[in-house]
Amino acid sequence: MAGGKDGKGRPAGWRNPFSTLEWRRGTGGYVAMIDQTLLPATQKVIRVDTLEKMRESIRALRVRGAPAIGVAAAYGMVLGLRPHAGKGARGFLAAMERVADRLAGARPTAVNLFWAVDRMKGKGKDLLAKGLQPRDVLARLLEEARAIHAEDSSQCAAIGKHGARLLRSGSCVLTHCNAGALATGGMGTALAVIYAAAAAGKKVSVFADETRPLLQGARLTSWELQKSGIDVTVICDNAAASVFGEGKIDCVVVGADRIARNGDTANKIGTYGVAQLARVHRVPFYVAAPGSTFDPLARGGADIPIENRSPDEVRQGLGKMTTPRGMKVHNPAFDVTPARLVTAFITDKGIIRPPFRKNIQLVLGW
Amino acid sequence: MAGGKDGKGRPAGWRNPFSTLEWRRGTGGYVAMIDQTLLPATQKVIRVDTLEKMRESIRALRVRGAPAIGVAAAYGMVLGLRPHAGKGARGFLAAMERVADRLAGARPTAVNLFWAVDRMKGKGKDLLAKGLQPRDVLARLLEEARAIHAEDSSQCAAIGKHGARLLRSGSCVLTHCNAGALATGGMGTALAVIYAAAAAGKKVSVFADETRPLLQGARLTSWELQKSGIDVTVICDNAAASVFGEGKIDCVVVGADRIARNGDTANKIGTYGVAQLARVHRVPFYVAAPGSTFDPLARGGADIPIENRSPDEVRQGLGKMTTPRGMKVHNPAFDVTPARLVTAFITDKGIIRPPFRKNIQLVLGW
Repeated sequence: MAGGKDGKGRPAGWRNPFSTLEWRRGTGGYVAMIDQTLLPATQKVIRVDTLEKMRESIRALRVRGAPAIGVAAAYGMVLGLRPHAGKGARGFLAAMERVADRLAGARPTAVNLFWAVDRMKGKGKDLLAKGLQPRDVLARLLEEARAIHAEDSSQCAAIGKHGARLLRSGSCVLTHCNAGALATGGMGTALAVIYAAAAAGKKVSVFADETRPLLQGARLTSWELQKSGIDVTVICDNAAASVFGEGKIDCVVVGADRIARNGDTANKIGTYGVAQLARVHRVPFYVAAPGSTFDPLARGGADIPIENRSPDEVRQGLGKMTTPRGMKVHNPAFDVTPARLVTAFITDKGIIRPPFRKNIQLVLGW
Repeated sequence: MAGGKDGKGRPAGWRNPFSTLEWRRGTGGYVAMIDQTLLPATQKVIRVDTLEKMRESIRALRVRGAPAIGVAAAYGMVLGLRPHAGKGARGFLAAMERVADRLAGARPTAVNLFWAVDRMKGKGKDLLAKGLQPRDVLARLLEEARAIHAEDSSQCAAIGKHGARLLRSGSCVLTHCNAGALATGGMGTALAVIYAAAAAGKKVSVFADETRPLLQGARLTSWELQKSGIDVTVICDNAAASVFGEGKIDCVVVGADRIARNGDTANKIGTYGVAQLARVHRVPFYVAAPGSTFDPLARGGADIPIENRSPDEVRQGLGKMTTPRGMKVHNPAFDVTPARLVTAFITDKGIIRPPFRKNIQLVLGW
């Protein structure tokens, strides 16, 4: 993780025991990232040094989680523009549009991807307009990507700080999918709340939904919580309802892939079901996300495109055939939790409570 | 399937394309059963010819589903008593107790297991009391087991007939786990309703929850529905909530492992969550089960013991490591759906609607 050694912006007591992704060396360098598809069996760092490798890494979920995808895409802009640094301003500008489109087309739901690509593109255009040469623009774009990464890390820490106040010592938190250090350029969003509470001396335990089809809870959340010494129990998604029914859950904290102006929240498939269970069992349901996950252009959930992924993720879970050959499968990667089921948003700018339409604008300063 | 060739008691138009389990030959024979742990990749019929093999087959879920476990246990009594047929009445009686205990200890939740073992034991005692020799008692116990099997088959058909009336043509049904021909000695419980509706010319489509951890929906329900030409789509358990939210589900039909006097229903883990989602989305939630699944000794859900199974079912799903080594896992095999979430029970004796405490007794003739 960039800046991982100085602990800048992180609560005392928490230090990331691994690096999710980081840029190594100057403009001639590359992104080193953990290939998350191989966890937990294998902790392998791969070298991503071209646009197409970055696009493939995002599509194949070697890097995933809305904030981490944003950081990866920012670095991806640098990788994609590097071969064009010898061109003139016009050629570089045209390449910037193509590279941006290529990255933006990698996955449709997480808004951080588009946000990061747009920010990089805007910066590049500004610098070209000021008369900088493409080679110098490229160097400044690497600085910008590093800045996005560092800001994400600080925002994670701020989310942790604000969210930790919502947890009592002894709290048991249910989380879905992975919204941790592996999903961000920092200490996570949902899991930042847990890390910060633990760092503040509170005793927190976690139930992690395994999160089919790709098992980010079983493979990733459990892995990183265990590495940080947090008490974690994995359950099948099916077991969440009974755990709620037994009164074991004090609150739910999840991340988000995109949040609309009204508070409707797209997140990993199954989140909507967890939100309904939380409501029925009168358990607070918190969504933790940085400002970059809120989409001012989406009025409500209906404006958020939902990615449908390959049926083979379900048909051949883990490489073995788990349905009859050619079985029809419906495999949406996300669902939308309506704002009325959200107790509060935990953001880097503070806690946002209802009425969301008003308070999101107010807190985020739109 | 016993009696599968004459179609006795089954609605016209449905014929089981496979045999879940059947007794072959006389008292010296054996149970031939599909090893359901190998489906859908391999359709292998195994030979179960000893008590210990039957106990292992039940424990390892080679045969599963409450009614099928009942039938298997009845045959298991014959297998277990066969080595004792040369003993005197007293020795045979003692063996009967031991064999019954051994089978009853195989799994704790499905009440059909205890019901079938008790019925076999009762029959054996009666015959011994009438002065029959153990060898003749054994022959009569095989007849009794065959009768239990045939009754189960007829009850499935009756469940189908009653339940089919609840489905309009064009209905889309969500089901969880497998409560089909593979789970019974006949055409199923929940799936009997679908088979019977289809046989009556209604167009019915099905969403099958894959049902982690052991994927009975993905592996078994999809397999048998596909074989019978029913339109089926597999979804991850996590996708059920969004499918409800999109208004795609007209009703839920599930089976049961044990139903208490008040209507509280133990069924595969995740059923309680589905029931809550059905309630929130105003979709009818039906439980299909024969009379033998109702437990007159359980006053409510709290009286039903819930089996916790090995963490490795979750940690090593499908043979591959899906959590870090030694990860803590909570893996209950069942949950309890409170009676207030059940719209009606579909039984072989007819549809039971609330108030359940009164109407279960009335309809089942307790």
